[in-house]
Amino acid sequence: MTNTTPLPNDLQAQRDAFHAELQDMSIIPLWLNLGAAAQTEPRVEGVPHIWRWRDIKPMMLRGGALISPQEAERRVLMLINPSFDRKSARTVGMIFGGIQFLMPGETADSHRHSPNAHRFIIEGEGAYTAVEGERTIMRKGDYVTTPAWKWHDHGNDSGQPMAWLDGLDLPFVNLLDANFFEDRAEGDSPQQPIYRQAEDSLHRWGRGMRPTWKEPARTDLSPLLNYRWETCRANLHALRDEVGSPFDGIIMEYTNPLTGRSPLPTISAYLQLLRKGEHTRAHRHTSSTIYHVAEGAGGSLIGGQEYLWEEGDTFVIPSWVAHEHWSTGGEAVLFSYSDRPILKAFGLFREAFAGQEG
Amino acid sequence: MTNTTPLPNDLQAQRDAFHAELQDMSIIPLWLNLGAAAQTEPRVEGVPHIWRWRDIKPMMLRGGALISPQEAERRVLMLINPSFDRKSARTVGMIFGGIQFLMPGETADSHRHSPNAHRFIIEGEGAYTAVEGERTIMRKGDYVTTPAWKWHDHGNDSGQPMAWLDGLDLPFVNLLDANFFEDRAEGDSPQQPIYRQAEDSLHRWGRGMRPTWKEPARTDLSPLLNYRWETCRANLHALRDEVGSPFDGIIMEYTNPLTGRSPLPTISAYLQLLRKGEHTRAHRHTSSTIYHVAEGAGGSLIGGQEYLWEEGDTFVIPSWVAHEHWSTGGEAVLFSYSDRPILKAFGLFREAFAGQEG
Amino acid sequence: MTNTTPLPNDLQAQRDAFHAELQDMSIIPLWLNLGAAAQTEPRVEGVPHIWRWRDIKPMMLRGGALISPQEAERRVLMLINPSFDRKSARTVGMIFGGIQFLMPGETADSHRHSPNAHRFIIEGEGAYTAVEGERTIMRKGDYVTTPAWKWHDHGNDSGQPMAWLDGLDLPFVNLLDANFFEDRAEGDSPQQPIYRQAEDSLHRWGRGMRPTWKEPARTDLSPLLNYRWETCRANLHALRDEVGSPFDGIIMEYTNPLTGRSPLPTISAYLQLLRKGEHTRAHRHTSSTIYHVAEGAGGSLIGGQEYLWEEGDTFVIPSWVAHEHWSTGGEAVLFSYSDRPILKAFGLFREAFAGQEG
Amino acid sequence: MTNTTPLPNDLQAQRDAFHAELQDMSIIPLWLNLGAAAQTEPRVEGVPHIWRWRDIKPMMLRGGALISPQEAERRVLMLINPSFDRKSARTVGMIFGGIQFLMPGETADSHRHSPNAHRFIIEGEGAYTAVEGERTIMRKGDYVTTPAWKWHDHGNDSGQPMAWLDGLDLPFVNLLDANFFEDRAEGDSPQQPIYRQAEDSLHRWGRGMRPTWKEPARTDLSPLLNYRWETCRANLHALRDEVGSPFDGIIMEYTNPLTGRSPLPTISAYLQLLRKGEHTRAHRHTSSTIYHVAEGAGGSLIGGQEYLWEEGDTFVIPSWVAHEHWSTGGEAVLFSYSDRPILKAFGLFREAFAGQEG
Repeated sequence: MTNTTPLPNDLQAQRDAFHAELQDMSIIPLWLNLGAAAQTEPRVEGVPHIWRWRDIKPMMLRGGALISPQEAERRVLMLINPSFDRKSARTVGMIFGGIQFLMPGETADSHRHSPNAHRFIIEGEGAYTAVEGERTIMRKGDYVTTPAWKWHDHGNDSGQPMAWLDGLDLPFVNLLDANFFEDRAEGDSPQQPIYRQAEDSLHRWGRGMRPTWKEPARTDLSPLLNYRWETCRANLHALRDEVGSPFDGIIMEYTNPLTGRSPLPTISAYLQLLRKGEHTRAHRHTSSTIYHVAEGAGGSLIGGQEYLWEEGDTFVIPSWVAHEHWSTGGEAVLFSYSDRPILKAFGLFREAFAGQEG
Repeated sequence: MTNTTPLPNDLQAQRDAFHAELQDMSIIPLWLNLGAAAQTEPRVEGVPHIWRWRDIKPMMLRGGALISPQEAERRVLMLINPSFDRKSARTVGMIFGGIQFLMPGETADSHRHSPNAHRFIIEGEGAYTAVEGERTIMRKGDYVTTPAWKWHDHGNDSGQPMAWLDGLDLPFVNLLDANFFEDRAEGDSPQQPIYRQAEDSLHRWGRGMRPTWKEPARTDLSPLLNYRWETCRANLHALRDEVGSPFDGIIMEYTNPLTGRSPLPTISAYLQLLRKGEHTRAHRHTSSTIYHVAEGAGGSLIGGQEYLWEEGDTFVIPSWVAHEHWSTGGEAVLFSYSDRPILKAFGLFREAFAGQEG
Repeated sequence: MTNTTPLPNDLQAQRDAFHAELQDMSIIPLWLNLGAAAQTEPRVEGVPHIWRWRDIKPMMLRGGALISPQEAERRVLMLINPSFDRKSARTVGMIFGGIQFLMPGETADSHRHSPNAHRFIIEGEGAYTAVEGERTIMRKGDYVTTPAWKWHDHGNDSGQPMAWLDGLDLPFVNLLDANFFEDRAEGDSPQQPIYRQAEDSLHRWGRGMRPTWKEPARTDLSPLLNYRWETCRANLHALRDEVGSPFDGIIMEYTNPLTGRSPLPTISAYLQLLRKGEHTRAHRHTSSTIYHVAEGAGGSLIGGQEYLWEEGDTFVIPSWVAHEHWSTGGEAVLFSYSDRPILKAFGLFREAFAGQEG
Repeated sequence: MTNTTPLPNDLQAQRDAFHAELQDMSIIPLWLNLGAAAQTEPRVEGVPHIWRWRDIKPMMLRGGALISPQEAERRVLMLINPSFDRKSARTVGMIFGGIQFLMPGETADSHRHSPNAHRFIIEGEGAYTAVEGERTIMRKGDYVTTPAWKWHDHGNDSGQPMAWLDGLDLPFVNLLDANFFEDRAEGDSPQQPIYRQAEDSLHRWGRGMRPTWKEPARTDLSPLLNYRWETCRANLHALRDEVGSPFDGIIMEYTNPLTGRSPLPTISAYLQLLRKGEHTRAHRHTSSTIYHVAEGAGGSLIGGQEYLWEEGDTFVIPSWVAHEHWSTGGEAVLFSYSDRPILKAFGLFREAFAGQEG
């Protein structure tokens, strides 16, 4: 596209002077910046990366001794993509992942924010999350939502440390300059009052019915607090005899019962079963994904490089990087979440696989 | 609006002649037909009515001896509103209700039709409905869908007669001149092949997830085959300490997990708990409803007339007729369904209650 | 489906007795009414029909002398399908058509109703319709909307009689028992106050922009008052070199600028150009249509019968009746409107053409 | 939120060591990065800025002599927000603005890209843009769309330089790693073939109708090529006697006739009239806006600083910065565009004004 013939000195000198003057005016000529505008394929900034549970867990225990949730607002280890600035809060694409942990007896005080959040429980059982007056006791493998601007707090009444993977659309909301945050008011209880029974939201919205006398203020936020591991895992296994997706095996998406769409407007989440011996076909697409190994072990070929993973590990696949997965030694279950709803909302989602490009 | 002063004979005679000529041209002057066009409030054609289970059940058993499901296409007793022609298939408003029954060992062969259908099980346990390769064993209180143009058949492998309330949008589809029907082809098995496990659709769509590798062809038809009584009843009881609807107590609507809306595009369905001593406030609205008493006993004041009901009874409330409900002697559970989605789709739904009209 | 073998007398007698008893209970056995439930194809009630302008116009002038708009509420000649009861207000399917006329100096007072209405101007120029504070001067060929529950009135300040075709979803709203009507209050002016300039709604909504400081209460009702003949006709001619629809030639649909969909939620409307010598291919579909000849002459083969038409004529094609059109002697322009949005809203629209059935 | 009491040396040392180790693992503790996560209000990165036409125009003419459109891909001066990296292509928020100019006789070759684009004509008359086989001759004040992935090219057949403001969602698509670009194939004509008449898309989609025989592939992209200045300006003036928006005067939004929403899925665009002496009330909101002065002169108070502007100037207001506008010496017309649809799609749009915060 650009002219690579050497220019007469004079013209080049004139251009250089011209460009320098423009720069002082906060103007950049497109022709000096075509990479930002006219690339044939996405110039992806993030890189694939894996964070291993065997590395994180000791740090978690150490952090537990060094800082309290109250000091930290939340005791979260932010997983920052090696190619991004640490202030970006970007794990991959438009989404964030972090490891949050609560020691026995600890609490994390109530707050709310415009970014959407969810959690996938890595280890432990017995801590709670409270949202909108309902507390849910979290267990390994549960998928728990705390949508935008809803007060939420946590507490660990069990005798063991508890850890989960926090997922947020924080990079997206930051980039949009739309991040609002609110702490409890002075004098308010640090934990929200509980006025609903356990599993209230499940009965209310999650079992094929809805109450008719109260419409939710926003239908794009899932009213379901906890998608239970044993239920979700059983769903996968009920379909295990199907062919499933050539790229992902038996993969199911968590849904918002109010719309049938993703539980959070910006983040879709999935649980997938890789059966014994299954090795999926490679594809790539313009959405970025954070994976967490919920069960078993296996590997992924990502952009030509092999990443082996086991239970508890977290890894990321950026936009437009080809990838395939396999299980090792038995079955594996991957939890994942993605910024795909953002791309789909504007017709920007593309997918391609070997032999069918574009 | 119209002039009620007697007219000069001559003018009246001229008008009469004019009107007669018009009639021969298939033309009616609006001023002779203002009732059809310019009524202040709806001129509702249907009337409230109740069909009692103690009357229907003996007829059902007698019918079981007199005609086979194959002879009858389906052995259904159509509940026709007393004010409508029997050919209208109208129970109330745009919806139909009929009592279908299968004797032990009987089957009803596979067919499909453009009207949407559902069933609410009145009595018995052990018969099945099959849709899209899945068979569900029906039990008292279950709500079972057979959406538009899906092949469906029934069979009773149990040792007892089984009865259910069929609900359809048949009057609506007939009035729209859009009723298509197809019987199994000659030579085909009268019962559809079963290639899915029991509760397949529940795992696939009904428990907070969806498979991602296959999109349903139509999202406005619920993919859930059976909304189980024990689940739905438990949902109601989980919310029993709320105030609920002033007009209906604890009332929940069955939902299509693909959209959060009604399971069938034209028919919404509800289950409602009237607590001991509860007596609801009167209201009226432009949708017509068929009620079926699932549990307990009580009464309804409908258009100023009292209707007492008990388990198994079916009654109807037409559009714009004021109504209120109460339980008697304990708690009662009403199943109901309505043509409300049709009215809502076009902004024609109105509701009013005493003290707030219009 | 039904057994046609003669039954043993005894069984037949028992059945007859059984059926008679059921009928007293407002119950009809399905097997006596399969026509209403299990027809292979729609059993369409309406018939094709044509009303000729040369017949109607003299009646209009005669009616003008015999009754005032105030006596008549509106002076409308209702075109009632020969196969329907006159009280049904059904011209075809779910829609109504009637010829309204105003003599010089006459007015039709303001009223509003839940049915949606539009008008297509047949003859004359200079009368107005007022809706929401805007008056539009109507001219031959204009398409004018008066959506649900909006006050509207008319007046003829010109020196000539003025006639238009009123289109309403009156049969549909009646069948839904949802027809509300309101006359101006006693003491109010019979004509609504005018507080907007001519063509206000066109500037506000119809020319590629919308004001941002006021959202319309309902987006499913077109805010455009008048779709001008000269504009709409010019649109058709701009596309005249395209192949167009094989079934309808160059056919364009009027659109609601708030949604891109039909101007009224229940009624879609069209303008179509049949070019010189054009003869369309036959098809049929589950929507019912009222046609009005806006320009030129031609014919239609409807259900195997030929109907020749010329400017000013109105004819109807019921659901699922095959039809094809042609122009005669030059070009022809047909205006038409249809209940298609009702069918589409619920997945009940089907279309078929020779060689491709189902 | 964070503890500001000095820590015992030992603990601080331990924390420092802990944090350093984490950093090596691509992990950042949330408590060191609360600014990215837990800010009470958006920490907006961009700043207000103005680019003056009297500065840009000479550079444009100089650039015209120094580089050809073919060398430059497009001859565009990218307006880059002073607080962003030049590679970001960010003028403000998620949107880009650049000045493109074509000298007499020049062309810009056909290409297409996944970012959406539009143009607002600053100066000149007679150059064309071609999209989908239609060429539109551009005139000062026209708003021209070239939606995602549509081939488009330009040419200046007039005798004068021609300049316009290019608007794109380039920063957004880049941040999503979804920017695809395609140049014409080798051997293809650099300008696309023209097979539609002038104003074709206006007749087809923009005047109250739509052709029925061909559905657009994507309804979220406006099929209208050119929203003409004289039409749009006349719309504004038709409403000039209304109060309008307290924050923006008479402000209208360009609309996509297929949906009534913004012409491009990610960018909304507006034209607003500030009447003589009008001074709007201050507000702020979570969307970022690029303004261009189409007519007249005036000023804006942006984040407490005054910016005076006149015809041809371009200025930006970032998210959540309070602003108010006024005209000077007569009337002024501002064109503007915004990333608001992105925020609205996910419930992230907030607005506040003095006296009503939150």
